[in-house]
Amino acid sequence: MKALVYHGPGQKSWEEVPDPTIQEPTDVICKIDATTICGTDLHILKGDVPAVTDGRILGHEAVGTITEVGDAVTEFKVGDRVIIPAITSCGKCSFCKVGNYSHCQTVGGIGWILGHLIDGTQAEFCRVPYAETSLYAVPEGLSDEDVLFLTDALPTGFEIGILNGNTKPGDTVAIVGAGPVGLSAVMTASLAGAGRVITVDMDENRMDTAIEFGATHKVNASDPDAVEKIKALSSDGLGVDVAVEAVGIPQTFKTCLDIVRPHGNVANVGVHGKSIDLPLQDLWISSISISMGLIDGHSIDKLMRMVESGKLPAKKMATHHFTMDQFIEAYDLFANAAENKAVKLVITP
Amino acid sequence: MKALVYHGPGQKSWEEVPDPTIQEPTDVICKIDATTICGTDLHILKGDVPAVTDGRILGHEAVGTITEVGDAVTEFKVGDRVIIPAITSCGKCSFCKVGNYSHCQTVGGIGWILGHLIDGTQAEFCRVPYAETSLYAVPEGLSDEDVLFLTDALPTGFEIGILNGNTKPGDTVAIVGAGPVGLSAVMTASLAGAGRVITVDMDENRMDTAIEFGATHKVNASDPDAVEKIKALSSDGLGVDVAVEAVGIPQTFKTCLDIVRPHGNVANVGVHGKSIDLPLQDLWISSISISMGLIDGHSIDKLMRMVESGKLPAKKMATHHFTMDQFIEAYDLFANAAENKAVKLVITP
Repeated sequence: MKALVYHGPGQKSWEEVPDPTIQEPTDVICKIDATTICGTDLHILKGDVPAVTDGRILGHEAVGTITEVGDAVTEFKVGDRVIIPAITSCGKCSFCKVGNYSHCQTVGGIGWILGHLIDGTQAEFCRVPYAETSLYAVPEGLSDEDVLFLTDALPTGFEIGILNGNTKPGDTVAIVGAGPVGLSAVMTASLAGAGRVITVDMDENRMDTAIEFGATHKVNASDPDAVEKIKALSSDGLGVDVAVEAVGIPQTFKTCLDIVRPHGNVANVGVHGKSIDLPLQDLWISSISISMGLIDGHSIDKLMRMVESGKLPAKKMATHHFTMDQFIEAYDLFANAAENKAVKLVITP
Repeated sequence: MKALVYHGPGQKSWEEVPDPTIQEPTDVICKIDATTICGTDLHILKGDVPAVTDGRILGHEAVGTITEVGDAVTEFKVGDRVIIPAITSCGKCSFCKVGNYSHCQTVGGIGWILGHLIDGTQAEFCRVPYAETSLYAVPEGLSDEDVLFLTDALPTGFEIGILNGNTKPGDTVAIVGAGPVGLSAVMTASLAGAGRVITVDMDENRMDTAIEFGATHKVNASDPDAVEKIKALSSDGLGVDVAVEAVGIPQTFKTCLDIVRPHGNVANVGVHGKSIDLPLQDLWISSISISMGLIDGHSIDKLMRMVESGKLPAKKMATHHFTMDQFIEAYDLFANAAENKAVKLVITP
């Protein structure tokens, strides 16, 4: 088959590789019907994720059709359409047993293994371990594009941003960063009953997209009065209930600390490359909480129902389409997503 | 009357001052029957809290008897025994209305005003504003000593440590620091159903006290293998469910980050004097939460019932007794609490 293979920092190619085969009775093989590129893939290509080694097929988000099942698999059969989410989990370890799939101990302590520790979804076929506890059946009537972004971006914005931020009905939620995951938080904020949803970014185009996706207000982060303008949008002007950090740099994390009200929550979604200075001498008395983490995927089935019922227009995130033989071109476009007005790509055979 | 008056860093005296008088219809005046000294009072005396100015009567914890009530007060009458907690709250602002009394906007945005922004409880008499929403009646049959530590230390350990840490039945809880507030967290951990309660300190005497107060295990923080020993005490050896920081320095905060399991909680109770370096490049994927804050006091009535029923032996915290004319002596002893094997003092007229 052909696949997008990583060959060390800055090096990738769309090339011929051996077909994947069943290795454990709990595996399935899927034909990939649609996949996409994540910001994390760009980090890998910069050399930021040393666990990814030369020869690794990238990708951790796809919709596929099962072509082969291991002997232990009874929940799925050949021909089933499934989504392949970013997290692989055994269902049996101490973390999986309490729903904390993101830290499945059996697959190595971090559930994100596809396109990281084992070959991923940017290929014609993909082997998925622990298929019964990792895959989700796609309901009839939903297209690949309807569900593709339920594999990572949307549940990350929802679980790690909106739900971990403890968003309650009527809350004012500010989402700092309007890239794919920030937009996912914007799109799912109303599912938790958010009152006002403020998008904060330096790119006006991206904020306009956020408004289309459900944000009720926008504040440009480069405005010197941005913090005061955001706070003024909260119920009593004293700060937002939930601040979602969806960038991953110290400056935007600090913005979240500046705009959150006492007793509010900062929900970090961004993937950070360095430490931040946390001013505990000021914050100890503030009664705020700070959460962070990797998607568990516990919301995927629920989000799928909301796509079905029309409450979550997930496929609005698809701005560009490519075929797999255009993979290098797709990466080039996504690496400059903001200037190309790209949110998420759909890449099909 | 006589009172303990702050006269700038390092300066205090037990001296004659004017009696307090009713200033607002919502005030009451209390005769102080028992008060105590808090670690925060020592911070004030070091000059760490510049909002406290020369001439201020210190103290924010007391049991008293009402001697005079303002015209608007109908809930209490002269002769009622009450506890005067650290937090004063109006009951009417946007924060009080949702139970976030610690950030009452009417009294200045921070509910701790006694012995801080207005005269406090280390005196023969004390004026308490917003009496109806700030004071708690003492049930018959409970002594001053039974309820004195419900004014601050015990509900702080319980609300900010155990409850904000989201302690669930059977959880392994490590409490780093065995001073009065750390011991308060130890003593109230079982009320939330904690399974194992690990006390962590460098002082063996204090840890032995923690064992008397309900800790099930102790680990000396100066042991080079302390982190591994604490993690080994968790259900699967992968870290504690809840790590309570009850010291207030970067080193102990880091210990909490090192011992908490993925999906666990770090509950900061310590009063910090400087910022800490938060390694978000490692933590973003960890699915932990970090909480911090000032007591709201929402647990005080419940803790009072637990004292009544014998489930919370609050008065065990009283290790030393003084009369008010020995106030300077009491401060001297409390400033060296660890070596004097002191937990909390009881100071009576």
